Amino acid sequence: MGAFLKEDFEDTIVAIATPSGTGALGIVRLSGKSALEIAAKIFKGKDLRTQTSHTLHFGTIRDGDAIIDEVLASVFIAPRSFTKENMVEFSCHGSPYILQRIVKLCMQAGARLARAGEFTKRAFIHGKFDLAQAEAVADLIHADSEAAHMAAMNQMRGGFSQKIKTLRDELIHFASMIELELDFSEEDVEFANRDELKNLVMNIHHTVDELIRSFDLGNAIKNGVPTVIAGKPNAGKSTLLNALLNEERAIVSDIPGTTRDVIEDEIHLEGVLFRFIDTAGLREATDTIEAIGIERTREKMRMASLIIYLFDLAHESLDSIQNECESLDVLGIPYIKVGNKTDKASADLLAALSTDEEYVLISAGQRENLDALKQRILTKVHLQDFKTGNAVVTNLRHFESLRNTRQSLEDVMHGIDNGITNDFLALDIRQSLHHLGEITGEITTEDLLGNIFSKFCIGK
Amino acid sequence: MGAFLKEDFEDTIVAIATPSGTGALGIVRLSGKSALEIAAKIFKGKDLRTQTSHTLHFGTIRDGDAIIDEVLASVFIAPRSFTKENMVEFSCHGSPYILQRIVKLCMQAGARLARAGEFTKRAFIHGKFDLAQAEAVADLIHADSEAAHMAAMNQMRGGFSQKIKTLRDELIHFASMIELELDFSEEDVEFANRDELKNLVMNIHHTVDELIRSFDLGNAIKNGVPTVIAGKPNAGKSTLLNALLNEERAIVSDIPGTTRDVIEDEIHLEGVLFRFIDTAGLREATDTIEAIGIERTREKMRMASLIIYLFDLAHESLDSIQNECESLDVLGIPYIKVGNKTDKASADLLAALSTDEEYVLISAGQRENLDALKQRILTKVHLQDFKTGNAVVTNLRHFESLRNTRQSLEDVMHGIDNGITNDFLALDIRQSLHHLGEITGEITTEDLLGNIFSKFCIGK
Repeated sequence: MGAFLKEDFEDTIVAIATPSGTGALGIVRLSGKSALEIAAKIFKGKDLRTQTSHTLHFGTIRDGDAIIDEVLASVFIAPRSFTKENMVEFSCHGSPYILQRIVKLCMQAGARLARAGEFTKRAFIHGKFDLAQAEAVADLIHADSEAAHMAAMNQMRGGFSQKIKTLRDELIHFASMIELELDFSEEDVEFANRDELKNLVMNIHHTVDELIRSFDLGNAIKNGVPTVIAGKPNAGKSTLLNALLNEERAIVSDIPGTTRDVIEDEIHLEGVLFRFIDTAGLREATDTIEAIGIERTREKMRMASLIIYLFDLAHESLDSIQNECESLDVLGIPYIKVGNKTDKASADLLAALSTDEEYVLISAGQRENLDALKQRILTKVHLQDFKTGNAVVTNLRHFESLRNTRQSLEDVMHGIDNGITNDFLALDIRQSLHHLGEITGEITTEDLLGNIFSKFCIGK
Repeated sequence: MGAFLKEDFEDTIVAIATPSGTGALGIVRLSGKSALEIAAKIFKGKDLRTQTSHTLHFGTIRDGDAIIDEVLASVFIAPRSFTKENMVEFSCHGSPYILQRIVKLCMQAGARLARAGEFTKRAFIHGKFDLAQAEAVADLIHADSEAAHMAAMNQMRGGFSQKIKTLRDELIHFASMIELELDFSEEDVEFANRDELKNLVMNIHHTVDELIRSFDLGNAIKNGVPTVIAGKPNAGKSTLLNALLNEERAIVSDIPGTTRDVIEDEIHLEGVLFRFIDTAGLREATDTIEAIGIERTREKMRMASLIIYLFDLAHESLDSIQNECESLDVLGIPYIKVGNKTDKASADLLAALSTDEEYVLISAGQRENLDALKQRILTKVHLQDFKTGNAVVTNLRHFESLRNTRQSLEDVMHGIDNGITNDFLALDIRQSLHHLGEITGEITTEDLLGNIFSKFCIGK
């Protein structure tokens, strides 16, 4: 762990912890050595300094004689708190004016305004959780789909960290064998069988590689799966998008006051968010899919992780459909073949397509068979993998550390093949360990932490 | 008190209590007979049903096997809670997704989604506070200036209710004397000296009248004092507004992240909000103040509670200034005479005006003597009255009930003068009592309550 400015943690910090705006309740939280003393100075009621942990106390916040609010004070005694420090949370009326007044009073009484993510940073520094878990806290707050929430929750609860820890332990075991050889290098003892070692590194490399590849899914889970509905003009693209959107709207609006602003082109399917890329340019390009060789079109298509390609069964023939599919295959992006307008299709065409299970046959206008399409969409994003509890990388920083780890592991394998000396081998292994350690925070710097926690909100 | 649907209060209600949006923390609150049982069903940790009041418990919210969040549960046992019912508050991560999931789980476990203001309504019904105090809770949440906050806090803490109660007690005493006479009317006994009675009613009438007149101030405190900066073209109106705005901005921006969106034409002076009415039409009208007789202009001017009238000392003479003042007097709106551009004025003019303390002499461009202007502005809105703790009516509903009270009292006085029978006198007094009782909620109907609490936010 890097060097920290110790005096930084001598401060008691304060911040508003609830979202901005007015509401029934708002919370101001204090954390640090003097949290109880500072809270006691502005709180009139029981003496907060002498209360037991995890108790609630009604009283008033005073500025001189003026009553700022009637509040409930929650008392947490170190280490039984989020930060493992003494903490007090004031639950007051959800007024920005009141919250701000209370923060100011805490500052006058000796607290310092918390920086973004500083409560979570303190929790991390005090060993409450590792860095990947701390990062999951921010992801959890911003998760707005079941899948994103599940991924963040798994990570916060330590599932992903456990996987990284296992990899690190294996690498450390490997490193120790190499270094044992180094110690006895004068005697030319070979403790570690080179082939066995290489196998071990290859296994670790394989796992790291899987994790790296999971980032596509992880990123899609976290930020939404970039999806394009494509097809020739009048194939029913807008009708399908609206049909999918309308069904969702009925689902999301059942709790008044909590429905977030509807973003037109986002759809949740079984907890996974699909973002529909809807640029006029892209639509045109996918309509004229024959011109697929043009690099500019490819560039745009690469934005999509999934293409839902509609065939107009009322107007297309089996031949024309198969031609289009060949053009699609060139793209190298997962796509779903959807025959639309089953209600207007010829019986022959329907019969031909229905034997090929690659095709999903729907009528977007009649809302027929949309469930089958949804299931196919979910299959394509490998949600099954995710739901079985496999570790999934959702964080770009982790993705990059894993890629660095993989590179170092490849250097190790290359070194073994080329018979480089143990000194250099040990160096490469240390490098792998370093990159893995960055993920969970065994290896860290003040810069890295600053960078991570500055993205948190204030009060977290 | 009106009739209530009793079964309504058999339900346990649930709602998100924190403002919408993402933040570090969010709160879901449950209130009602089954609050502990419902909370215990979805909370994994200690059994919430057996905990003592005012304690906090760490655990997880579960939906089947899936962990929705790690939370802190606050337990409140009736009657030691905001609603005087059993209550549980879950403090969870401030994610709209998580908050919504927890609300849904509570609903599945038997809770009903709370209606707007329903927690506060239950507190009122259970005698936690009276209606005026309950209304102050909403005012408190929306108060965004020191004065509005102070007014709401005074009202919530019962200051205003006490004043109304005193008036009611006096009236009840009066009514009892009248009714005593009624009981003995056969015997022609006169317990209540008519002149004494009239004096008593006149005293009450005077107090009610003062309260009614305080509404101008109260409304200004709550919603901001509508203010116009007027004067001839080039008198320095915009320069003054900007000078006042700039000073405020430096004050409000000292806590990052909490500064609310700056509304260009609002200024806080010593905790009072001034809203500057800034219609092009109005400005023009005040510039051509000679045409003041025109009804349309008057109509617009009536929007203002205060006019800051600027004289351009570089171009006006003592005569022209005095002429303008006469036109202003006609308006009947409080105004402040401000001589601007002291740095460019003749010594004679300055000497003449500085002996008349009605004038405030400033240089808006040089920012000279602005503090004196601010003090004068504050004097004009009678903030002193307010700060000395006099009861101030801030609520339109209370204002209307007080006006109805006053009308009934005038009927009483009129009746005494005209020697009407005690029956009718008693009726008018009962009517006054009814209107006063509406304010604090001794007299209420389900409609009235619905109307009041529906303006609250959900979760309050």
